[in-house]
Amino acid sequence: MTRTLITGGLVITAAEEVHADVLIEGSRIAALATPGTQNWTADRVVDATGKYVIPGGVDAHTHMEMPFGGTFAADSFESGTRAAAWGGTTTIIDFAIQSPGQSLRTGLDAWHAKADGKCAIDYGFHMILSDVNESSLKEMDGLVAEGISSFKLFTAYPGVFYSDDGKILRAMQRAAGNGGLIMMHAENGLAIDVLVEQALARGETDPRYHGEVRKALLEAEATHRVIKLAQVAGAPVYVVHVSAREALAEIARARTEGLPVFGETCPQYLFLSTDNLAEPDFEGAKYVCSTPLRPREHQAALWRGLRTNDLQVVSTDHCPFCFTGQKELGRGDFSKIPNGLPGVENRMDLLHQAVVDGHISRRRWIEIACATPARMFGLYGRKGTIAPGADADVVIYDPAAEQTISAATHHMAVDYSAYEGRRIAGRVKTVLSRGEVVIDRGEFKGRPGHGVYLARSTSQYVR
Amino acid sequence: MTRTLITGGLVITAAEEVHADVLIEGSRIAALATPGTQNWTADRVVDATGKYVIPGGVDAHTHMEMPFGGTFAADSFESGTRAAAWGGTTTIIDFAIQSPGQSLRTGLDAWHAKADGKCAIDYGFHMILSDVNESSLKEMDGLVAEGISSFKLFTAYPGVFYSDDGKILRAMQRAAGNGGLIMMHAENGLAIDVLVEQALARGETDPRYHGEVRKALLEAEATHRVIKLAQVAGAPVYVVHVSAREALAEIARARTEGLPVFGETCPQYLFLSTDNLAEPDFEGAKYVCSTPLRPREHQAALWRGLRTNDLQVVSTDHCPFCFTGQKELGRGDFSKIPNGLPGVENRMDLLHQAVVDGHISRRRWIEIACATPARMFGLYGRKGTIAPGADADVVIYDPAAEQTISAATHHMAVDYSAYEGRRIAGRVKTVLSRGEVVIDRGEFKGRPGHGVYLARSTSQYVR
Amino acid sequence: MTRTLITGGLVITAAEEVHADVLIEGSRIAALATPGTQNWTADRVVDATGKYVIPGGVDAHTHMEMPFGGTFAADSFESGTRAAAWGGTTTIIDFAIQSPGQSLRTGLDAWHAKADGKCAIDYGFHMILSDVNESSLKEMDGLVAEGISSFKLFTAYPGVFYSDDGKILRAMQRAAGNGGLIMMHAENGLAIDVLVEQALARGETDPRYHGEVRKALLEAEATHRVIKLAQVAGAPVYVVHVSAREALAEIARARTEGLPVFGETCPQYLFLSTDNLAEPDFEGAKYVCSTPLRPREHQAALWRGLRTNDLQVVSTDHCPFCFTGQKELGRGDFSKIPNGLPGVENRMDLLHQAVVDGHISRRRWIEIACATPARMFGLYGRKGTIAPGADADVVIYDPAAEQTISAATHHMAVDYSAYEGRRIAGRVKTVLSRGEVVIDRGEFKGRPGHGVYLARSTSQYVR
Amino acid sequence: MTRTLITGGLVITAAEEVHADVLIEGSRIAALATPGTQNWTADRVVDATGKYVIPGGVDAHTHMEMPFGGTFAADSFESGTRAAAWGGTTTIIDFAIQSPGQSLRTGLDAWHAKADGKCAIDYGFHMILSDVNESSLKEMDGLVAEGISSFKLFTAYPGVFYSDDGKILRAMQRAAGNGGLIMMHAENGLAIDVLVEQALARGETDPRYHGEVRKALLEAEATHRVIKLAQVAGAPVYVVHVSAREALAEIARARTEGLPVFGETCPQYLFLSTDNLAEPDFEGAKYVCSTPLRPREHQAALWRGLRTNDLQVVSTDHCPFCFTGQKELGRGDFSKIPNGLPGVENRMDLLHQAVVDGHISRRRWIEIACATPARMFGLYGRKGTIAPGADADVVIYDPAAEQTISAATHHMAVDYSAYEGRRIAGRVKTVLSRGEVVIDRGEFKGRPGHGVYLARSTSQYVR
Repeated sequence: MTRTLITGGLVITAAEEVHADVLIEGSRIAALATPGTQNWTADRVVDATGKYVIPGGVDAHTHMEMPFGGTFAADSFESGTRAAAWGGTTTIIDFAIQSPGQSLRTGLDAWHAKADGKCAIDYGFHMILSDVNESSLKEMDGLVAEGISSFKLFTAYPGVFYSDDGKILRAMQRAAGNGGLIMMHAENGLAIDVLVEQALARGETDPRYHGEVRKALLEAEATHRVIKLAQVAGAPVYVVHVSAREALAEIARARTEGLPVFGETCPQYLFLSTDNLAEPDFEGAKYVCSTPLRPREHQAALWRGLRTNDLQVVSTDHCPFCFTGQKELGRGDFSKIPNGLPGVENRMDLLHQAVVDGHISRRRWIEIACATPARMFGLYGRKGTIAPGADADVVIYDPAAEQTISAATHHMAVDYSAYEGRRIAGRVKTVLSRGEVVIDRGEFKGRPGHGVYLARSTSQYVR
Repeated sequence: MTRTLITGGLVITAAEEVHADVLIEGSRIAALATPGTQNWTADRVVDATGKYVIPGGVDAHTHMEMPFGGTFAADSFESGTRAAAWGGTTTIIDFAIQSPGQSLRTGLDAWHAKADGKCAIDYGFHMILSDVNESSLKEMDGLVAEGISSFKLFTAYPGVFYSDDGKILRAMQRAAGNGGLIMMHAENGLAIDVLVEQALARGETDPRYHGEVRKALLEAEATHRVIKLAQVAGAPVYVVHVSAREALAEIARARTEGLPVFGETCPQYLFLSTDNLAEPDFEGAKYVCSTPLRPREHQAALWRGLRTNDLQVVSTDHCPFCFTGQKELGRGDFSKIPNGLPGVENRMDLLHQAVVDGHISRRRWIEIACATPARMFGLYGRKGTIAPGADADVVIYDPAAEQTISAATHHMAVDYSAYEGRRIAGRVKTVLSRGEVVIDRGEFKGRPGHGVYLARSTSQYVR
Repeated sequence: MTRTLITGGLVITAAEEVHADVLIEGSRIAALATPGTQNWTADRVVDATGKYVIPGGVDAHTHMEMPFGGTFAADSFESGTRAAAWGGTTTIIDFAIQSPGQSLRTGLDAWHAKADGKCAIDYGFHMILSDVNESSLKEMDGLVAEGISSFKLFTAYPGVFYSDDGKILRAMQRAAGNGGLIMMHAENGLAIDVLVEQALARGETDPRYHGEVRKALLEAEATHRVIKLAQVAGAPVYVVHVSAREALAEIARARTEGLPVFGETCPQYLFLSTDNLAEPDFEGAKYVCSTPLRPREHQAALWRGLRTNDLQVVSTDHCPFCFTGQKELGRGDFSKIPNGLPGVENRMDLLHQAVVDGHISRRRWIEIACATPARMFGLYGRKGTIAPGADADVVIYDPAAEQTISAATHHMAVDYSAYEGRRIAGRVKTVLSRGEVVIDRGEFKGRPGHGVYLARSTSQYVR
Repeated sequence: MTRTLITGGLVITAAEEVHADVLIEGSRIAALATPGTQNWTADRVVDATGKYVIPGGVDAHTHMEMPFGGTFAADSFESGTRAAAWGGTTTIIDFAIQSPGQSLRTGLDAWHAKADGKCAIDYGFHMILSDVNESSLKEMDGLVAEGISSFKLFTAYPGVFYSDDGKILRAMQRAAGNGGLIMMHAENGLAIDVLVEQALARGETDPRYHGEVRKALLEAEATHRVIKLAQVAGAPVYVVHVSAREALAEIARARTEGLPVFGETCPQYLFLSTDNLAEPDFEGAKYVCSTPLRPREHQAALWRGLRTNDLQVVSTDHCPFCFTGQKELGRGDFSKIPNGLPGVENRMDLLHQAVVDGHISRRRWIEIACATPARMFGLYGRKGTIAPGADADVVIYDPAAEQTISAATHHMAVDYSAYEGRRIAGRVKTVLSRGEVVIDRGEFKGRPGHGVYLARSTSQYVR
């Protein structure tokens, strides 16, 4: 069993900042000790002096190879997980999709087939429920038992992923019984489709109209609605990609009442805005995702929500489409632009920049990017922290380095960056996944298939 | 032109309490004067000494002869408007119904045919939109122009009256343009139907389960939702029969923000509770209506809402079904009980009792029962007040009289009273409709066909 | 008894807009009638065709001849009430002041002496309690009995008018027993004095610092505090001159809970802002009053509060000090600038402009400026409306006229106007006070001493 | 350097639950390791199999030997810290008191003299500011520099500890500059004193009236007020012993807005109620403390606040007075009963019971009782967690043991227990303070003077 010793770094977890040596035996963390006290020997010694030693990132929201509007997200599980590793993320939870008329099992099997043997880092699956019926409800129980303990439904996308309120209630009731966690894409899709149709009829076809028709009030409405449905079902609910301050306010209201309501936001909502959607020459299409980017003033509310813990998780909703050939499908009709942004590689860095900018503390950085997503989705103990017994997913992060984000240098299989040219303080130096070095000083040392499937327990926030 | 003089009473309107003589010339009020100052002569002098002189009641929510679940509401326009007159109400606004697949015009014509020549008092129509489509949306404009200036939609009753959020938004947008007022039955019908099915499957068939499955939270949810849809549409919205304090809280929140949101409650929610729904021997069926009766503690919230003006109107939602033969359709399955209660005759008296009980002031009694419903639905100036030029719809009310409500003595065509045995302080003595005496000292002096159709202006609360 | 007939106008009250002839017999309104129906004869006929016929304004907050910081408000009861009449106001309620160490009676007598025989219009008194003790608390009961039914206390001005929370609570308890209404100047004076001292120490002596140290949060704090003290005492409370949206939010919160909490604002907070306080060359001193003017964005909140009825009254807090010789006392030290603005003449016009601008409806104009202040302070029935039996305080208002406000043309005894150069749509044409013409077509026809003292009942909003 | 090894236990911190061996070298924790992996040798091995290994408790609110109303709290620093150790608490922060007219230094020296050489466990001091003036404000800076980084002020107790709002604002401003944390006893003492006087005048002298006069609304008012003053000062604020749900609601409101507002509650508010205050035969006096116990229904709100993190800390406010001879001073006059309850020994056990009862999780138990108080008051890293480098303040806690709280067996120097007869699941087995065993299997192994004074950094929640 290989012994790896990381010496002299500042170990940062959600709870602590401790100068400690970290001893890894095989794939797990074996011990932490006051630097220099234990005379440990090791096969490999990593000097982390002046660096941060942090848990590998947990990105709880990715869509590798996802079909959308006749095309597919550009990152395969191979390219996407490799890019994740480059960015200091060592776990992703992707979304397997049930197709209408088919079983959950069929969808899950398809996603297992896509990922199996391809991943550079560990991965798990949520399940998207597109067709809630007696049969699929029953299947949920089995999936929870085998480690698919979270299920996503949509109040958006009528005719595609949309479930009506009765179906959502049924799924929530089932989850209340089997311990599953319901994740909601909360936008009033029926109302939005009316506004889309009307905008197109007025000749408003530019990407920026994507942001105008998907109104903040309609995100807030659906957020309130799914909270109430969850309350009726006696179930917790996790709202994905919160972008509107009005939606956040609904979550905050529920949490103050003590309801088990959780909220996730994404870097794009924290760093980008409708100004990007309005970029000329169809460049705005690069920033088309749903929920949409909001006016700049929403950013401060989201940062505050991260500080007050009304938002608990930052995931990427990584779902990249190339500008050329993919985003371009929506020229002349914003509603045909594939929805999604690349980001799995950028999350840890962008959030470190937020530490430097004073938005969040270092510990909060690790909490929202590693510890809480792991705990939320039943991976804590193994992932999201540095403690004896945990998987040795560890990042040596250099806070003094600098970098510039660019499509020219990133490793995601997409022809643009949403953060092109942005200067970042800090950079990943070394990444270990279950004790193996996968990134070191600018080189990828990993391999497809190193990453294993993670059967997850039920959410550790829900009793 | 007949001159009628009402002398010596205390004239109470929404705004004033004045000792004044009231002179009626023909069908209209001609003048008010300090008692005894004007030496008026008249064909008929009514001595109102020691009595209240109040505007005739305006009941903005009735369902005469309404089809529901294979049967019809027991009161015809003839019996129902006569009963209204007995209770001091001189105007009703009933609901004409569009059937799915048919035009608004067809529905409206049918209701005109039912009412024409039958009514003892004046009447207008709202229109229920059951089928929102390009054609019916266009029809709305014409109806507003001819005096049907309010339209009701439902988030409840999937498969019957239910409209989805996209359709509701379209109707609200249309109303924002043509000045119409959208009235919403706000309960999440899709979620409720799930709970109904589950309750019946558990063998919970008694009327009291009607109250349990139609949860307060699901009324609150839908109330919030229609408020947000109205906000997106830039339209006002009027929420009918608010019964849950949580729904009221949503209305209050919106009103504090300055949104044009209005709320109506009904006597049954103020005076009855789930205790009634739980009466044994299927007696609870008498109290089945939707929104349902709530636990007693909601009553205090509703009274407070009436005092704070977060609720503006008390209507009856009069929709009577006989216990024998009609309510009994739901023995063994509460979901088959026709929804509705009798009440058009009792509203003014019950609210006067609320004055005596200290819930509201005398002026507020008139405001919520006469003035505001008239103004809300485009009848003010003619109805709802006592002022020069107004229709002479006047009630001489004896606050010192006493009565006991009973099916044995009421005039509604229904075999039970929801308020059986309740003692009331106060009683109608004389009722004039457009200057003609229709009720006097316990005798009906009116006739079918005296009442005329009222083409209404747009809401006088909406610019 | 002189008979006056006003014909052909649009009579506007808080509740109605009616085309009606108004018959006045002696000092009272005798009758209203549909135009032309009654063949009334009169000694004097006023043609109001094309004009509004409205109740005379009730200004519930004036300070004639008030001592402040070693000087006196520039308007005497004679000049001030004459100016009020010019502006369509026919009732003022001024503040008699108890000096520390003296009885209420002594203060009241002094104010009676100042006003007696001087006033052009009717007047009443509130009483300022500067020294709450066993004796003054007992005196309150007697004052209520003789028509001084409202008492003002201050959380501001330590060492002058300030009462501590214990004293405020005692006064509120007493009022809860005797039916008096406590009026509160709500700013945290102790905290403000710290900020004043610190600002002056930093050399911040300009008038604009008056606005900076009297922080909106400290108005909100004190507003919340007096509401809670009133709740403990079981008493209603009326908050004077609300200027901060945060303070308004506290009032709205309390009202939604059903508490008997009332709020007044003033034209200066609706039409002026900290921009005025920052005018150069010490001109800002003209706008120094407390609570202070706020940044512009507070105006929208106040207008909304007037529409939602979270604010019920607009008074002037008329307390004029000449720029030359009086305001100048504070050159080099903003804390020495006498606090107060002229306005008693401008209120009705400014609020009519607000009608034209779409902030409020015509009826709401009359409600906040006439009816509600009358009802709040026990004068309704006599003042604030046009109805049989009411005092014939009537204004013929020409909505089609135009005017420009200016110190050059106003009638207040002060050398500047806070609204200099502002164009106003609408203008008073004729003013009657108890049936006598006091203003007509640009001429003052009244006389000192016409106005009588009004013994007021307890507030008609409080049971 | 003594090596101590704790093997086989479940290490619980605020963030983790990990099966780990804990190695202590001298007074500090040196390392944690997966059980059995490191072949560590030690001078002393503690078998923690089946036990919890938790950080020693941090009680941030005690009053040893405090003078109050002519008597002194019954526990000396010697007896009180020994009792704390018995209960698994290894750090207290007590309150040094400035007397009016004296310097902070004088007060602090007096408290150092009381504690020096007496304590069984480590201790720090907050400083009570009784006399805010230029001199004492300046002294604050020096105290922060030497480890007294928190200052308590009172809106209660006029004439004793009370500071007016101006003084509170000044102290908060100073703290904003020097990094100190202001702690507030938030009750409106001026209003309460009025109610006390009135109650006594009515003959209401029993202890239960203590709870009635100190109204929840007056705690909420003062809580809101100090939050606003802190906001004006740009300072954080920590509200001590929150007992009323209305006060908690104010804290929650502020925190949702992102303000640096913190709240502490105490076991007595979580486990006791006004029912105890109403115990007959003057027994209620045992439960007299301020803020007072509240009706039972407040308990649920406080537990929810602990779960939602609107409350962050549970301290004891330990301030024991014997029933005989001390509490009895208030027979016939509840206002003379010394305020305070014993509790320093019971806190960790009561909160473990709350874990068993399902109110909080195990990690939350440690967070509110150890980690957060340490971080709040500048001790984290040393106290409140188990991590390399931290002081070896460690408790071996047996969750399977049972005990019954009783004055007959407790170690506090007071003749009654507030929790007499209460059954508790769980019990302390062994307690280490800086690596030395102070309690082991029912024996006290420590000594006066082992405990050292802790110079604290500024709050680690405040930047």
